Amino acid sequence: MRFCSDCGAGVSLRIPQGDTLPRYVCDACGTVHYQNPKIVAGCIARWEGKVLLCRRAIEPRRGLWTLPAGFMENGETTQQAAARETWEEARARLSNMALYSLINLPHISQVYLMFRGEVENGVCSAGEESLEVGWFGEASIPWGELAFPVIRQALELYFEDHRRGEFPVRVGDIIRHPDDDRLEIRNYRAGSVTV
Amino acid sequence: MRFCSDCGAGVSLRIPQGDTLPRYVCDACGTVHYQNPKIVAGCIARWEGKVLLCRRAIEPRRGLWTLPAGFMENGETTQQAAARETWEEARARLSNMALYSLINLPHISQVYLMFRGEVENGVCSAGEESLEVGWFGEASIPWGELAFPVIRQALELYFEDHRRGEFPVRVGDIIRHPDDDRLEIRNYRAGSVTV
Repeated sequence: MRFCSDCGAGVSLRIPQGDTLPRYVCDACGTVHYQNPKIVAGCIARWEGKVLLCRRAIEPRRGLWTLPAGFMENGETTQQAAARETWEEARARLSNMALYSLINLPHISQVYLMFRGEVENGVCSAGEESLEVGWFGEASIPWGELAFPVIRQALELYFEDHRRGEFPVRVGDIIRHPDDDRLEIRNYRAGSVTV
Repeated sequence: MRFCSDCGAGVSLRIPQGDTLPRYVCDACGTVHYQNPKIVAGCIARWEGKVLLCRRAIEPRRGLWTLPAGFMENGETTQQAAARETWEEARARLSNMALYSLINLPHISQVYLMFRGEVENGVCSAGEESLEVGWFGEASIPWGELAFPVIRQALELYFEDHRRGEFPVRVGDIIRHPDDDRLEIRNYRAGSVTV
C-alpha cells in the first residue's frame, strides 16, 4: 500500500496513537488502513465414499489437484461461501453440510474453513477455474500432485476420520519457520488447541 | 474506496473480466482491490463456573458489556488472536483453550470465532479498552446491557451447554432482513449447518 484509498495522498507505515502494531496511515487525512487475514472457505464433498477434487486451470499451481475452495466474499456466510466455491469450481450441489476443519496459516494470513457435504448421484463437471474434476477414494488420491499443503492436511484428517466413521471438528495450524522455511503441521481436536 | 492504494489514481466499481461481482478496479494500473470479510476472535473465559465480561471503554457501545474479542491480525492464528484480545481487554491469561463457536454476520461481513478457556485463580483487570472487568454466573450476567447480539448468542449457547456439561462446537448465523432490519438468529450443531 502506497496511497490512501480514501483521499489519494501518500501513506506511511507507523504505529498509530493507542495502537501496538504498525499500520498504513494517511499523511493527509489520517485514515488508518487496517489489513486483516482472509478466510478461504471450501468443501470436502462426498459421494459413495469418494471425495471431489479439482485440477486447477489457474495459477498458482495450475495443473495440480485441490479441494473446491476460495476466498469468502463480503455479504455471505462461511457455509454459503463453501457451497458457492464448490459450484463454481466443480459444478456440484452440496447437501447435508457440516463444519469440518479450521486450519490457520499465519505466514500468509489465511484461515481455511472446510465443510463436509454430500453430492447427490455424484453430479459434477469442471467449472471455469478447473481443467477437470473427479471422485477419488483414499488410495486413488493423487497425493503427490496436490496443490497446497493445507489441502493435504485436510484430506489426511478426513480419511483418518472416515476410517473411524466419526468426524469431530478439527483445528490445525501450518507454521512456516522463518529460519529454514520448514512447514510445521499441527493438528488438534477442537476441544483442545494450543496457542 | 475512491483511489488506488497502489498508484493513487481513481478507481471504478465494476465487474472485472472473468469475475462475477463488482470490485474496485484502478482506472490507471488495472489493479483489482478485493474486499473480504473480517474475523473477530475472542474467548469465553471461565473461572469457578463464571465467565469473564468486559465493560467497553470505547465506541461503539461504550459502557455496555462484552466478551473479550477483537479483529484478528495478520500473522497470527485464531487462537492466538483470541488469547491476545483476552489479555489486552481483561489482562487475563488463558489455559486449556478449545474452539467453541463460529457465528456468521453476513450483513456486516464478519465471522466471530469464539474459544473457551480457563483463567487460573480468576486473575484479571481492566485493559485500556475496558472500563471494568468481572466474573459473572448465568444469573448475574447483565443480559439487558450486552454490547452486541452476537455476544448474547454466544453466551446463551455457552450456558445451555454449561448446564448439560457438554460443549459441542457451535455454528450460528445472525441474518439481518433488509425489509425490516429484523435480526434472525440461527443456531446449528457443527455436524449439520444450513446454507
